[in-house]
Amino acid sequence: MPLPTIEWEGDVNGRIRLIDQTVLPTELKFVYCEDIKSIWHAIKTLMVRGAPAIGIAGAMGVVLGVKDIQGESAETFLKELKQVTAYLAASRPTAVNLFWGLARMERIAQENLNKSVLEIKEALLQEALRIQNDDKIICRQIGENGVGFIKDGNGILTHCNAGGLATADYGTALAVLFKAKEQGKHIKVYADETRPLLQGARLTAWELVHAGIDVTLICDNMAGHVMKLGKVQCVIVGADRIAANGDTANKIGTYSVSILAKEHGIPFYVAAPVSTFDLSIKSGDEIPIEERSPEEITSGFGKRTAPEGVKVFNPAFDVTPARNITAIITEKGIIHNPSRENIQCLLGASGR
Amino acid sequence: MPLPTIEWEGDVNGRIRLIDQTVLPTELKFVYCEDIKSIWHAIKTLMVRGAPAIGIAGAMGVVLGVKDIQGESAETFLKELKQVTAYLAASRPTAVNLFWGLARMERIAQENLNKSVLEIKEALLQEALRIQNDDKIICRQIGENGVGFIKDGNGILTHCNAGGLATADYGTALAVLFKAKEQGKHIKVYADETRPLLQGARLTAWELVHAGIDVTLICDNMAGHVMKLGKVQCVIVGADRIAANGDTANKIGTYSVSILAKEHGIPFYVAAPVSTFDLSIKSGDEIPIEERSPEEITSGFGKRTAPEGVKVFNPAFDVTPARNITAIITEKGIIHNPSRENIQCLLGASGR
Repeated sequence: MPLPTIEWEGDVNGRIRLIDQTVLPTELKFVYCEDIKSIWHAIKTLMVRGAPAIGIAGAMGVVLGVKDIQGESAETFLKELKQVTAYLAASRPTAVNLFWGLARMERIAQENLNKSVLEIKEALLQEALRIQNDDKIICRQIGENGVGFIKDGNGILTHCNAGGLATADYGTALAVLFKAKEQGKHIKVYADETRPLLQGARLTAWELVHAGIDVTLICDNMAGHVMKLGKVQCVIVGADRIAANGDTANKIGTYSVSILAKEHGIPFYVAAPVSTFDLSIKSGDEIPIEERSPEEITSGFGKRTAPEGVKVFNPAFDVTPARNITAIITEKGIIHNPSRENIQCLLGASGR
Repeated sequence: MPLPTIEWEGDVNGRIRLIDQTVLPTELKFVYCEDIKSIWHAIKTLMVRGAPAIGIAGAMGVVLGVKDIQGESAETFLKELKQVTAYLAASRPTAVNLFWGLARMERIAQENLNKSVLEIKEALLQEALRIQNDDKIICRQIGENGVGFIKDGNGILTHCNAGGLATADYGTALAVLFKAKEQGKHIKVYADETRPLLQGARLTAWELVHAGIDVTLICDNMAGHVMKLGKVQCVIVGADRIAANGDTANKIGTYSVSILAKEHGIPFYVAAPVSTFDLSIKSGDEIPIEERSPEEITSGFGKRTAPEGVKVFNPAFDVTPARNITAIITEKGIIHNPSRENIQCLLGASGR
């Protein structure tokens, strides 16, 4: 049963309900965001995370942000809307789906500027819900498109969480695994715990246990050893931003896993909606990498585990070069050996 | 100021005093072992850990174990001694230094069987102290021998803890860094935190901060990214057992780091005393890999961080093939491109 990661409740004056992913797996708690500050905070603190889910949260956040705009002129409305989107865009810098979602909302406002403020708000809410609903369809299509890579009896390694909790409800990388399970394939998943915030241990393991899929939790540093033991036949991960040449930003550690997979001759797949592509940037070198608080590493579990005075480096993402990626699985199809040319070929001249 | 990782207090009826490494870095607590069960427990639960330190703990543990043997015959003494060493050998299966230390103690007993029980006990205590003292000298020699690999301004990545706390007091991999610092070289160390038990965060970072060495803590999954950024010029780690062909067992994750280093063209050094070599085994495939409790991964920080029902794989070590090792630094000299031939050449026909 897919989880409702993030939902809108009510009309244009309604609110967002989301699963607080920071307290999983020991607690399933819903958080309600009534205003733009609370959804900004929810994105920033990873109550809601995962590139597609952040895109939905950003779009719904815009609806919260324009709640208080009343009967002003269309021009004023647009100006305030841009403040709203700029504010939300600052919550997390790496996942492009956030900016993509915000841009879609701005475009809808532009297209409806001849209407009343209430009608524009209605149009914005409908667009946010459309983004959410599209994501449900997209994720299932990614599952369909990728499932051919999974053979009965395969061991599959995944990193971080690209599951239902990272999307509206079905996941990207995990969609492929859910689909394999639905087809009756027997699979064995190895989930990297994914330090520092343990999205693999807390979220991926939880989703897979609930889906009845055989899942074994390992520490990130065990991936190479597990591959050497022959337990893994493919790697599948999500993505936060994919450059025009196929270089892919994803959770820190993904780059290392791609090298380990290459060393062991194991195919490495990225599963992501086309909204994850950012054709405005040529290569991964241009993707900004969010750095997060040292405390996530030094005292991430309510207990100090490092000495005072130690320096800390805490990048939240890294970039896997296209050459390490066997294929990118999207809702529009599969891009084998990703390159500028075959990415443009699949996405079309428009970019998306 | 080197730390007294493990000390013997008193005469043959004395006790072991050791730093409880499970509560560092927030607490510097000494634990006293008066009998063989308590030192077995201290080794098993990693109050004392690190291959050379386990060798010392095992040897001193033998002295504790023979405390209660009184005026029996030499034959009975030897029989009981063998029970003691067999018991201690079962505390941890991977580090060969434990078996090496126990074998040295058995040999000493054999050599002194014509003496009184008290004299044999005296000889055993002296041997344990000799092992400890030898280790201090060996570690300093490893530092001397390896320091040439470290250039002024280098960034160095290390994994787990091969520092003073893993030895009598000065370390193996960290000995090289302490020596570089003593020579006035400016170095910048990246310490992998080393899940699940965080020996890198808790012990290595603590030792280096106290030694005034610039140390930056990272999660294990960040090593590849840090290398890609050009921050690391060499990797240096310790070892728990080295096979005749140079394959090296060390803390889980070391194998992955060796692959990442190779991918980035970064030299990968192992620093270990010759007592770490086990010439009785041909290759790393024969090294038994200790598997530890799932709880170390699922609730390692006093808080459950994984769902009920998840499987866990928790190998404590992995094996780095000799081909990934640039050189092994020992107290007897450096083995470049380790192989059966040049290992035997350095160690001599006797093996050690």
